[in-house]
Amino acid sequence: MTAPLHEANPTGAGRALPDTQQGMRRRNLARVMHTVSAEGPLSRAAVATHIGLTRAAVSTLVDELVRAGLLEELGPERPGRVGRPGSALAVSGNGPAGIGAEIGVDHLAVCAVDLRGDVRARAVRQGTNRDRGPEPVAAELTALLRQVVAEAEQQGLWPAGLAVAVPGLVARDGRTVVRAPNLDWRDTDLAALLPPELPPAVDNEANFGGLAELWLGEATPADFLHVSAEIGIGAAVVVDGRLLRGTRGFAGELGHVPVRPDGPACACGGRGCLEQYAGEEAVLRAAGLQPGENRVELLAERAENGDEDVRRALRGAGEALGIALTGTVNLLDPGSVVLGGALAALAPWLLPSIQDELSRRTAGRTCPVTVSRLGSEGPLLGAAHSVVRGVLDDPGAVAGRR
Amino acid sequence: MTAPLHEANPTGAGRALPDTQQGMRRRNLARVMHTVSAEGPLSRAAVATHIGLTRAAVSTLVDELVRAGLLEELGPERPGRVGRPGSALAVSGNGPAGIGAEIGVDHLAVCAVDLRGDVRARAVRQGTNRDRGPEPVAAELTALLRQVVAEAEQQGLWPAGLAVAVPGLVARDGRTVVRAPNLDWRDTDLAALLPPELPPAVDNEANFGGLAELWLGEATPADFLHVSAEIGIGAAVVVDGRLLRGTRGFAGELGHVPVRPDGPACACGGRGCLEQYAGEEAVLRAAGLQPGENRVELLAERAENGDEDVRRALRGAGEALGIALTGTVNLLDPGSVVLGGALAALAPWLLPSIQDELSRRTAGRTCPVTVSRLGSEGPLLGAAHSVVRGVLDDPGAVAGRR
Repeated sequence: MTAPLHEANPTGAGRALPDTQQGMRRRNLARVMHTVSAEGPLSRAAVATHIGLTRAAVSTLVDELVRAGLLEELGPERPGRVGRPGSALAVSGNGPAGIGAEIGVDHLAVCAVDLRGDVRARAVRQGTNRDRGPEPVAAELTALLRQVVAEAEQQGLWPAGLAVAVPGLVARDGRTVVRAPNLDWRDTDLAALLPPELPPAVDNEANFGGLAELWLGEATPADFLHVSAEIGIGAAVVVDGRLLRGTRGFAGELGHVPVRPDGPACACGGRGCLEQYAGEEAVLRAAGLQPGENRVELLAERAENGDEDVRRALRGAGEALGIALTGTVNLLDPGSVVLGGALAALAPWLLPSIQDELSRRTAGRTCPVTVSRLGSEGPLLGAAHSVVRGVLDDPGAVAGRR
Repeated sequence: MTAPLHEANPTGAGRALPDTQQGMRRRNLARVMHTVSAEGPLSRAAVATHIGLTRAAVSTLVDELVRAGLLEELGPERPGRVGRPGSALAVSGNGPAGIGAEIGVDHLAVCAVDLRGDVRARAVRQGTNRDRGPEPVAAELTALLRQVVAEAEQQGLWPAGLAVAVPGLVARDGRTVVRAPNLDWRDTDLAALLPPELPPAVDNEANFGGLAELWLGEATPADFLHVSAEIGIGAAVVVDGRLLRGTRGFAGELGHVPVRPDGPACACGGRGCLEQYAGEEAVLRAAGLQPGENRVELLAERAENGDEDVRRALRGAGEALGIALTGTVNLLDPGSVVLGGALAALAPWLLPSIQDELSRRTAGRTCPVTVSRLGSEGPLLGAAHSVVRGVLDDPGAVAGRR
């Protein structure tokens, strides 16, 4: 089993599949899955109407998906409907599950999401992962993984793949953490440290946060910038419903966009990077606070209680974000900017100055700034859903594996 | 006839076509065209091997393309080759032509490019278009268009479509110039002012410049940023071989990325935008020169002759470009940055400070900066080739039209 990182596919079909009869069959399997997933429960006839194939062709596809455990028949439709009663089809709640994992700077988390998008099992361990080295962290994550997979299997699910979110740059091989400064990891082959029976697709947490917003957010446009922060500031650039990864997989490093080119030196080698003004440590420093645990909660609490030092620090962070986002909006013209991760919790105090800068500097070309409802759950959910989307996008590959 | 703006399609097939037998046929027609275009002249058997279809299937497709005038048979291959001699196929030099046009601030240009990529007719008119208003400019462009089309038709070509490059923001409808500050145009429906028999696909000059680089440049990667300047500074963001347009079609406004957030006010509403440091007028001012015609030539000549004021002004422009590009490289992780348009002619004096800033600020994550060989021809060639690519990407549509 290979576990590529599956991405959004708004057309609902595995377009990368070969253009042969066999490829067309697999694309049509994907169409059926996406249709039932988005619109179900549906009869075979309704599926046929939706995707423009004959009832007979759809029945063959549906039978294959039912046999593979990806669709299930809910039994005859209730009487009173027009026409001959047909069995309604739904996406299976007892088939494959996407396993998502997150290595945060201060926690580990794993969850299992079924094809319907429901979280069916979940495990979290709080505690810092700074300076522990990859091996003990991976060992602890493996224990959580085994726990969640066992819990999912008890419910009749089976793991279709694993995706792992990490706070760092990940190579395009989807397994090597090139640099995770807040974990002090460098060139770590994370896949080699995790269970071989469930090869992971490793990616940056900001990327998974952005994908979660794309798939689970409310009225998210197909082109947007998702900004997230844990300790650092990252972003996911989504274009036409697809994540922009960059040549080496390093796209989205919003935290290192220069805000004031002669500003303070940054660990990246630059000067005056956004992180020097809006990163968690910079904000704590500007507010006269010490770094420590639960920093975001502390900032939110103090701002809520009217602490003027904290509010001023957050205004300053918002200004810096607004300047960096002005450049981004000019360059990419996104449909919206979504604040996620820790930023979501601080949005009430960041948003006014972000919006001020942005509208002042992009007269008439401004871009709405919204707040994610997923907050810090984004990366974990994005990871699990990336596996689920992979199954919906190419159910034929999964069916062939069972 | 609709004339959508055709984009790069590195897989060589019109993926947006419906997934039916008819759609598959059209995609396979595209595969044959792209194969012969990239590898030809080729026998039918060689085409079949290249695209993995049977010889019989390929012959049917080829016959259709020959009938439509898109491919031509060069006659039997020379003896001495192994196997039964077959007629070699080549892309037609007497079929459809892409008509490209450019409305520059100081010139108008039109050209016709055949399916082989050769420029077969060309017309240019020098002279400012500033403050003339759209109607007289469009009338003059129409005269040039008629001249070039007539010249192409005398050579047996027929216009497959028209694409027009303009120095301004273009709406995603591909016809409305939303804002062209250096022409003083605003919300101009350019398509309505051009000949109805050849409806144009209008786009920003920087976009066409970037596409020209993608299609005609040397060893251009699939992900790059093309920076170009005439009077303003624009960029084209190319991702996976496709132009990133943005939600409203306004992506690529590199000239309005803030370089020094408290710097001089810019007409866009911002402060300290890149154009305030590296735009043509800013550079002329910094060098103690007056705006006028042939400004780039003047700067290049003086820099060449060792004029220290001009060299210092160009170094300063390069620094500002390096700061803005640092943000871009962090955000998009492109495979390269290509300097095109007027910047190409000034590259010897800009490049050192661009590269200094970029490598200093993006330690270990830097990105090569190269110079386009197309120079100021990029937008015009990109426009014409966008039509040609449209024919190669969906030859079935063209065949059906004749």
